[in-house]
Amino acid sequence: MAEVLPLSGRLIGVGTGPGDPELLTVKALRALESADVLAFFAKAGRRGNGRAIVDGLLKPGIVELPLYYPVTTEIEKDHDDYKSQITDFYDRSAEAVAAHLSAGRTVAVLSEGDPLFYGSYMHLHVRLAGTFSAEVIPGITAMSGCWSVAGLPIVQGDDILSVLPGTLSEAELARRLADTQAAVIMKVGRNLPKIRRALAAVGKLAEAVYVERGTMANAAMVPLPEKVDDAAPYFSLVLVPGWKGRR
Amino acid sequence: MAEVLPLSGRLIGVGTGPGDPELLTVKALRALESADVLAFFAKAGRRGNGRAIVDGLLKPGIVELPLYYPVTTEIEKDHDDYKSQITDFYDRSAEAVAAHLSAGRTVAVLSEGDPLFYGSYMHLHVRLAGTFSAEVIPGITAMSGCWSVAGLPIVQGDDILSVLPGTLSEAELARRLADTQAAVIMKVGRNLPKIRRALAAVGKLAEAVYVERGTMANAAMVPLPEKVDDAAPYFSLVLVPGWKGRR
Ligand SMILES: C[S@@+](CC[C@H](N)C(=O)[O-])C[C@H]1O[C@@H](n2cnc3c(N)ncnc32)[C@H](O)[C@@H]1O
Ligand SMILES: C[S@@+](CC[C@H](N)C(=O)[O-])C[C@H]1O[C@@H](n2cnc3c(N)ncnc32)[C@H](O)[C@@H]1O
Repeated sequence: MAEVLPLSGRLIGVGTGPGDPELLTVKALRALESADVLAFFAKAGRRGNGRAIVDGLLKPGIVELPLYYPVTTEIEKDHDDYKSQITDFYDRSAEAVAAHLSAGRTVAVLSEGDPLFYGSYMHLHVRLAGTFSAEVIPGITAMSGCWSVAGLPIVQGDDILSVLPGTLSEAELARRLADTQAAVIMKVGRNLPKIRRALAAVGKLAEAVYVERGTMANAAMVPLPEKVDDAAPYFSLVLVPGWKGRR
Repeated sequence: MAEVLPLSGRLIGVGTGPGDPELLTVKALRALESADVLAFFAKAGRRGNGRAIVDGLLKPGIVELPLYYPVTTEIEKDHDDYKSQITDFYDRSAEAVAAHLSAGRTVAVLSEGDPLFYGSYMHLHVRLAGTFSAEVIPGITAMSGCWSVAGLPIVQGDDILSVLPGTLSEAELARRLADTQAAVIMKVGRNLPKIRRALAAVGKLAEAVYVERGTMANAAMVPLPEKVDDAAPYFSLVLVPGWKGRR
């Protein structure tokens, strides 16, 4: 392997947890304290959830580097155009971060939840960690925040947990839900009716719990069968506990 | 539903994260500060990892309530004797905690990693949460700590993550490893040779990463194919990333 001489700048991926600022770790707080530059991904014109979470925690004078996604809908995300646009965007974002790192600055990149668990930070990490010193500070995942708010033991003993994106087809969701003890279904949003049908098909709708904005000030949760509408915000997920409190 | 009048005592399940005390959340620190009693599960004569993690963080005068497991090996855990012993143990533990709660005290129960993710705390929660006010503070899971230490993006986009106990049979491990993008294999210990064979059988040994004591002072990690022996401590797991840095 070629020897890598890290330049003096430091890249830190900082997990902010799912919403409650008190769910930042001590290590994450120290990283925010040590950073010269605060980078974060956001939709154009928005602030991004990671950035909102740390709002009360920033030291004065920190330089902010918002990285605005070029595409706001995921509809065409299998198209080549989308893919090349998003690749370009991550390349340009990495260059913007690298400029600060090359100047010897410490750059903290915020990531809602845990950075390496479905987080955009990883696109910077794979581009920069070979050249610069890089550290990842884990965060409380959305699923941990949600099952804690719900007081719902998710797995025990030899249970298997399947984390499934709600974007899977109904048949694939049903097949996997039937073949696991516990499940977490992420990316609910407009996929909720399909998720309901898949759960019902395998007899697991009754035990499913819906949580939105878990650990945020306006969090809500309800057993999924009792949820009367199909409206679900971006920050929502469905929990299927593996362990039913059997003793 | 019957109305529950919570007595004045408060039960708090506190996730300590996987080892580094800096991975406690601000909320967990506040809970330790507010607690009158600190309960934790441990093997007889040992201190338990959760308790070790918070060693430097305790306020003077806090009352410690160690809950010692009656059985130290998992060999016979499908036997009825084991099951009734362990049920008795959780019943007695819940009674010991309830005595403090009934006296109006705040009891923090430590849980290594996240309390409701394969944690013993849940056995107290299901017994006490109906009677007393109970709150769960999520913790950084061992898997998040380990993939962060390894700098290994675990899932992206529509990847599926399967969390598998290493206690599954070789055939079952292989079947599930073949049918997922990403996997985390917990409870490695003496199951390591079997886990290696299952990964090799489905062509995923090359990408697997072994991490022991992730985030602790003596943490170690190595690509699994390069690990020369089969010795693995209790605190170890295997990561199979779903996302290979494809852009
Ligand atoms: C791109 S993923 C980011 C996951 C995050 N990195 C983590 O560690 O959990 C976004 C998905 O996470 C889930 N999510 C994030 N925050 C949430 C919250 N506070 N409550 C419920 N679901 C949340 C939703 O399912 C959402 O579609
Ligand atoms: C009973 S489970 C507890 C899981 C914990 N509640 C969590 O949130 O991750 C114990 C298993 O977690 C894993 N584990 C816990 N701490 C670890 C660490 N620091 N490094 C690697 N694996 C760890 C090991 O696989 C171990 O067998």
